[in-house]
Amino acid sequence: MIKVGIVGGTGYTGVELLRILSVHPDVTVSCITSRSEAGMPVADMFPNLRGHYDLAFSEPDVKTLAACDLVFFATPHGVAMRMMPELMAAGARVVDLSADFRLKDLDVWATWYGMPHESPEWAEKAIYGLPEVVRDQIRTAQLVANPGCYPTAVQLGFLPLLENGLVDPSRLIADAKSGASGAGRQGKIGMLHGEVGESFKAYGASGHRHLPEIRQGLSQAAGSGVGVTFVPHLVPMVRGIEATLYAELRNPADFDRLQALFEDRFRDEPFVDVMPFGSHPETRSVRGANNCRMALHRQEQSSIVIVSSVIDNLVKGAAGQAVQNMNIMFDLKETLGLEAPALLP
Amino acid sequence: MIKVGIVGGTGYTGVELLRILSVHPDVTVSCITSRSEAGMPVADMFPNLRGHYDLAFSEPDVKTLAACDLVFFATPHGVAMRMMPELMAAGARVVDLSADFRLKDLDVWATWYGMPHESPEWAEKAIYGLPEVVRDQIRTAQLVANPGCYPTAVQLGFLPLLENGLVDPSRLIADAKSGASGAGRQGKIGMLHGEVGESFKAYGASGHRHLPEIRQGLSQAAGSGVGVTFVPHLVPMVRGIEATLYAELRNPADFDRLQALFEDRFRDEPFVDVMPFGSHPETRSVRGANNCRMALHRQEQSSIVIVSSVIDNLVKGAAGQAVQNMNIMFDLKETLGLEAPALLP
Amino acid sequence: MIKVGIVGGTGYTGVELLRILSVHPDVTVSCITSRSEAGMPVADMFPNLRGHYDLAFSEPDVKTLAACDLVFFATPHGVAMRMMPELMAAGARVVDLSADFRLKDLDVWATWYGMPHESPEWAEKAIYGLPEVVRDQIRTAQLVANPGCYPTAVQLGFLPLLENGLVDPSRLIADAKSGASGAGRQGKIGMLHGEVGESFKAYGASGHRHLPEIRQGLSQAAGSGVGVTFVPHLVPMVRGIEATLYAELRNPADFDRLQALFEDRFRDEPFVDVMPFGSHPETRSVRGANNCRMALHRQEQSSIVIVSSVIDNLVKGAAGQAVQNMNIMFDLKETLGLEAPALLP
Amino acid sequence: MIKVGIVGGTGYTGVELLRILSVHPDVTVSCITSRSEAGMPVADMFPNLRGHYDLAFSEPDVKTLAACDLVFFATPHGVAMRMMPELMAAGARVVDLSADFRLKDLDVWATWYGMPHESPEWAEKAIYGLPEVVRDQIRTAQLVANPGCYPTAVQLGFLPLLENGLVDPSRLIADAKSGASGAGRQGKIGMLHGEVGESFKAYGASGHRHLPEIRQGLSQAAGSGVGVTFVPHLVPMVRGIEATLYAELRNPADFDRLQALFEDRFRDEPFVDVMPFGSHPETRSVRGANNCRMALHRQEQSSIVIVSSVIDNLVKGAAGQAVQNMNIMFDLKETLGLEAPALLP
Repeated sequence: MIKVGIVGGTGYTGVELLRILSVHPDVTVSCITSRSEAGMPVADMFPNLRGHYDLAFSEPDVKTLAACDLVFFATPHGVAMRMMPELMAAGARVVDLSADFRLKDLDVWATWYGMPHESPEWAEKAIYGLPEVVRDQIRTAQLVANPGCYPTAVQLGFLPLLENGLVDPSRLIADAKSGASGAGRQGKIGMLHGEVGESFKAYGASGHRHLPEIRQGLSQAAGSGVGVTFVPHLVPMVRGIEATLYAELRNPADFDRLQALFEDRFRDEPFVDVMPFGSHPETRSVRGANNCRMALHRQEQSSIVIVSSVIDNLVKGAAGQAVQNMNIMFDLKETLGLEAPALLP
Repeated sequence: MIKVGIVGGTGYTGVELLRILSVHPDVTVSCITSRSEAGMPVADMFPNLRGHYDLAFSEPDVKTLAACDLVFFATPHGVAMRMMPELMAAGARVVDLSADFRLKDLDVWATWYGMPHESPEWAEKAIYGLPEVVRDQIRTAQLVANPGCYPTAVQLGFLPLLENGLVDPSRLIADAKSGASGAGRQGKIGMLHGEVGESFKAYGASGHRHLPEIRQGLSQAAGSGVGVTFVPHLVPMVRGIEATLYAELRNPADFDRLQALFEDRFRDEPFVDVMPFGSHPETRSVRGANNCRMALHRQEQSSIVIVSSVIDNLVKGAAGQAVQNMNIMFDLKETLGLEAPALLP
Repeated sequence: MIKVGIVGGTGYTGVELLRILSVHPDVTVSCITSRSEAGMPVADMFPNLRGHYDLAFSEPDVKTLAACDLVFFATPHGVAMRMMPELMAAGARVVDLSADFRLKDLDVWATWYGMPHESPEWAEKAIYGLPEVVRDQIRTAQLVANPGCYPTAVQLGFLPLLENGLVDPSRLIADAKSGASGAGRQGKIGMLHGEVGESFKAYGASGHRHLPEIRQGLSQAAGSGVGVTFVPHLVPMVRGIEATLYAELRNPADFDRLQALFEDRFRDEPFVDVMPFGSHPETRSVRGANNCRMALHRQEQSSIVIVSSVIDNLVKGAAGQAVQNMNIMFDLKETLGLEAPALLP
Repeated sequence: MIKVGIVGGTGYTGVELLRILSVHPDVTVSCITSRSEAGMPVADMFPNLRGHYDLAFSEPDVKTLAACDLVFFATPHGVAMRMMPELMAAGARVVDLSADFRLKDLDVWATWYGMPHESPEWAEKAIYGLPEVVRDQIRTAQLVANPGCYPTAVQLGFLPLLENGLVDPSRLIADAKSGASGAGRQGKIGMLHGEVGESFKAYGASGHRHLPEIRQGLSQAAGSGVGVTFVPHLVPMVRGIEATLYAELRNPADFDRLQALFEDRFRDEPFVDVMPFGSHPETRSVRGANNCRMALHRQEQSSIVIVSSVIDNLVKGAAGQAVQNMNIMFDLKETLGLEAPALLP
């Protein structure tokens, strides 16, 4: 049994980790921390866990965490980077669901997150944990930076195009839409049901923290810098991300082999599903599941490839991918605990 | 492995059966029928099942069904009763999720369902499958009539009060609310998102088909006829039922022992959760899970017991309870395939 | 032109007052206050008002307010009662949308609102502004206490039954459901879209602040104390209240004359619509409009009258009723500014 | 008083026309037709209109319609074009909300709408009624083709860029999102609340009927053919469209003058609101109102102009724009009947 600790368990990624791990046959959650709720049973805060966990939130403590086989950080940015040096020194292995170790350029990180980075050593050593790209490095990693939700949906959809140099890398557009749980579980007026319900809007259209992360990932896939425009939107639903991706084919004749190319690229990926050409993936088809489903489109007389890619922002976009990374790190079957189909309807 | 057949698989209870059974370790779904969609792969209609089933819908055929260990009917009323005599004669065991075998008084059935009952013999023999009431009879039953969604939520909440004769049985009120999936998957204008979204209303307030089913179950619990008023409402959400129940305590002093009484009644029930006095169960706390959660309330100077009871209408109110019944019928662990926590948020 | 001031304009009732008053031909809004947002143009906070108002929020100031013909309070409880003596002394007329002057029994008020009442004199003089009951007193009132949202829906539905002594006043049940805007515009975790969306629950089932207000109003209608159970619920929508009311007819033969009785009671009421017997009023049929629609139901062999009553909690349940009261106070046509039909769909 | 007839009144644009016209001071609705519902009072189908209309649906009849000053068609495509020659010959003036007269190239029309066009004469004479472009021609038009919902949001947002030749016209992208009312009021399974609720998806990504209409309008603005990619999406809400538009500036230095350019372009337009640079228009800020609100964005080091444009699909995207066109045709104040602010929240 893998002994797991969770730092920062009162948010949506925290409860989602607990939900997923509760059916994982090889895991025991031995501690879950929260400064603000220390002492409260997790099942009192999250009633879906009644009968599944006896655990209560505890004060974070490095020694206790270091005694775990794996520690998940489900904290706001800035927390993990401060605890990391000590934890790493103690030999812990970590999957960090926050943004602290996702960017390699720490100046860019500092600009977008509004503070200097305090653990440059581990920022360099951290593996950006998109299994579909760097599975082998994840296997042996001590610290995995779990990708952001939007970056997961966007990168997976663009990968085959960029890796094969089929599209103009300077003209990528990612128009992405997310349910409200992506904003976390804090009492902000703008995220009230009275504000979000029955309305739709773009946000962060002049620049969002996931833009540099997307740019970094896509540049790596393309082998050189890319020009990408990324606009996120807020959908009046709880879970789910859809990203509609636009790229310009260098050679429109390539349209004929795109579907096969995508299917080949992801044939062995347990969690990426390339649907038939012209399909329209729905976010509900991945609700609660660790899948990314995508489909390709072309409009008449056009050289634009359109990719629609969907994930559950809390699963493949956060806790599910984190568990997938854990499975890889501990040499377990990659799908363990992640087999159940999505909840539809 | 139990070989399962499903009749009528294109509705919401059909896809929910497939979702639940896909993680059941002891079950193989060997056929799923649909007259209208014969030949279509189930995963084409329900993309959440892509990668989980290779099965296609087939024409219903008694011989094929009779070769299954268990047949689920997920059909509109009127279908199961016509096929039942032949299936029963062939020795099949059946859990019928439709309303065909729920009522013992067939005149009442004919009135509410608008047709004469065509299988009175099996209507008499069928076991009304609420495990919390008749678990032992389910074990050996050949035909189990799976309870309706509202009746499950309402009966479980009233049971301890009526079984112990604590309340006036002539003055029961059940004010129930359901998500839109309860109306099924047919193209009715009244169930469009444009009609249901951002609105709330009562329906069937002058009489709903679940009223006689509720009355039958509560009368059995009370040991004599009850007077119950039942008003269902339509909530702009997909899944979930909440029933707020009102009953008048014969002796207000009994308030002091109600919580213990409820806890005792359901202590050994794996799927009924009595929350602390004064809690407010949320439908999302049971979304996708086979649980019924309930809590008790009292208002100052009042002799009215208030019970709030929630289920997922497609799970404990339909497919989950059907699988629970199957587990009982085949002497499996009752919770098999039904262990995962609810999806919250 | 009536010169109007609004105290506390950053909440949902504030913006709703502005929306309604913007089309009122006889009103000018001359000031709108907010301590926290002083200086911000109202159209910056509420973009639907762009092009309709040049006004900015200002610090509350008694002198400025007293110079208005009418002041609306759209503040949390506790604010209006402190400013009232000075404003009243200055001769202002006020419609208070908060709870400060709704209850006549100030001990009850203090218990439910957690503070002593600081303006007993005006609590006594205030008119509880339900026009359908006390229109004549509103005409000349200096201070009108605008009824709460739930109490409006519940009282209107019960009125004809109680005024005519047709039902057992000790056994009234009001099961009410509200959209999330009823909780106001404050950053509470429990009201996030991520918490409220796709879920349904009761709340305040052991006692809610609107219970004593409902009891007071119904007792007045009945001519003596009533026993009423009131359970509110939270619906995943923004606007709307539906109340399903249950009462026991003393004489079931009275069922035959109930519809006519209700129609007579409200025949001259411009904002109460008694729909045909057996109808199901939808909250969207009153969205954005000042109407209360209701319908009667009876279930077979039952002596329980069921009334389903719907309002928009922000209109007839708050700002619309406040404007209706203003129209009455200033001897204007009662429907002025309130004529537009509801937004459906 | 303008005597108005409405053909096809049982859909969402029909009820919306009635809602808007009910507060229009210069209009009387003298007939509203529906083959299927002839004889039914409109207020029985649309309860928000109770008390506002005594009218019942009637069989469509050319003579009666021709006696109106203006006829609105709110019919599925194919209906208006068949009745038009006779109506036009009778001297009627018409605003057609359907797609029948929007495209000038009738081969394209036939391809997308699956039938030959039956009124080529009037297809040529019809004025495509986007007031912000061809107000003067609308004034004297006998037949106005009311623009589609998506085309309105997309064209208004691109207009200033194309009219001034600032962007590469071959690389336009319009990623648009709509509430479910855009699909109309027909009983399709795919539009059930159980299918649409809590989910998000693209649809028509390989080609949607509004694509040729958008291309025609943008080409006219650009003065030559454009290359535009248009992907619509379905949002789990009832009303509202948001379009996020991407275009590549020929000269990035032009960014500095874009805001002023947009403001100048729409300064005199009563229904187009250019919000401050970097704003995020919400669909609720135009719910129920005839406004289009838009805002500009730029991401660092990018030459892509981003425009976010919102309308209410049933108002500025259908019935409201139709009434605006009527006001222009009859030389009324253009905003008459359309002054009320949007319903927020």
